[in-house]
Amino acid sequence: MHRTRIRVVEDALDANNTIARANRADFDRASVRVVNLMSAPGAGKTTLLERALAGLDGVRAGVLEGDVQGSMDADRIAHLDVPVVQLNTDAGFGGECHLDANMVRSALVELPLADLDLLVIENVGNLVCPAEFRVGEDARAMVASVTEGEDKPLKYPLMFRACELVVINKIDLLAHLDFDLDRFLHHLDAVNPGVERMLVSARTGEGVEEFRDWLARQAVRAPAAA
Amino acid sequence: MHRTRIRVVEDALDANNTIARANRADFDRASVRVVNLMSAPGAGKTTLLERALAGLDGVRAGVLEGDVQGSMDADRIAHLDVPVVQLNTDAGFGGECHLDANMVRSALVELPLADLDLLVIENVGNLVCPAEFRVGEDARAMVASVTEGEDKPLKYPLMFRACELVVINKIDLLAHLDFDLDRFLHHLDAVNPGVERMLVSARTGEGVEEFRDWLARQAVRAPAAA
Repeated sequence: MHRTRIRVVEDALDANNTIARANRADFDRASVRVVNLMSAPGAGKTTLLERALAGLDGVRAGVLEGDVQGSMDADRIAHLDVPVVQLNTDAGFGGECHLDANMVRSALVELPLADLDLLVIENVGNLVCPAEFRVGEDARAMVASVTEGEDKPLKYPLMFRACELVVINKIDLLAHLDFDLDRFLHHLDAVNPGVERMLVSARTGEGVEEFRDWLARQAVRAPAAA
Repeated sequence: MHRTRIRVVEDALDANNTIARANRADFDRASVRVVNLMSAPGAGKTTLLERALAGLDGVRAGVLEGDVQGSMDADRIAHLDVPVVQLNTDAGFGGECHLDANMVRSALVELPLADLDLLVIENVGNLVCPAEFRVGEDARAMVASVTEGEDKPLKYPLMFRACELVVINKIDLLAHLDFDLDRFLHHLDAVNPGVERMLVSARTGEGVEEFRDWLARQAVRAPAAA
């Protein structure tokens, strides 16, 4: 008699990961690549996306906006004539501080996945929990504003470690801040050595093209094996 | 026969509130007033505290620093010769994004409560969950940086609604931003009409005295009934 032993997984994130894998399978079936975009509140995710998506030629992009409440960000993205779905997390006692795989799953039916090459999921503004919950994404990017100070990689190491790309935003303000860029990069390399990074001002447009190119590269999929 | 019916309280925050009341009772016994200071990451809580505590004459203040990881903020405050305890929340799977009443309770034994008039609890940088967990405080203050944009009261309404004071920080940068202060105040009044607010630059010192005076007022306790 063949016996199989099932180990009870005690990881609190296990249910989330199971659903994230189901999301990922749906994304793969639709040949859409998915980027999870994270940051602290007000670091400039939406402005960066607005600027980058505007000139993203040849890539059919869609956006999933995560916010505790309201649809201000989705309204901004909708002006670009890009498919966008707003996901609000305020159904709980005071609002969830992150997106999880199940929330994302509940929004997938609203998105024309088969018509997309790239889906950008803009997470809730928060440097802790969004890094803990995979949602089925292919890549994770975060936006760190220079106004937040040089110490953030050391104070929120999981977030900086979880990302394939760190966008350092609001560099137009550098002349008016005490922010020491070298020190920030030193701290960044301490928690995520050599992680790809780019200097951007979503406001002036400086460096936005580099981020746009990065998005375009994410959308390129290796041809399926024959 | 006398029968009592106990209703099962389903509020997920009930255990937290029970412990928060125990903290509050301890604070009251020691005649120490407690301020819960909250903000997004990098809004300037620690710098504001450093500047305000430095000249807070006649008030015996202590600080409880909440961070996911590290003791950088506690080290900064310790230079002021103020009793400070660092509380790290990274014991969980990836770090808790807020302080709760039980974490604060675990730190109370390390603080000389009987020798304090005022305890400032600097929460983890996050605009969602810190507003949901009472820790036994008398008053709640939040710091909103003008670099975060005018829309934040609408996107994180619970946080702006939970506070008795909103400190609008980094006003030295106003000339270099597209931030519309009137629009921000309009949004603030939409979620918390008439809430006390002050304009501050923790960096230049502008407005810090007003925050220092506010802290001093919190420390003043009505004399106990005869």
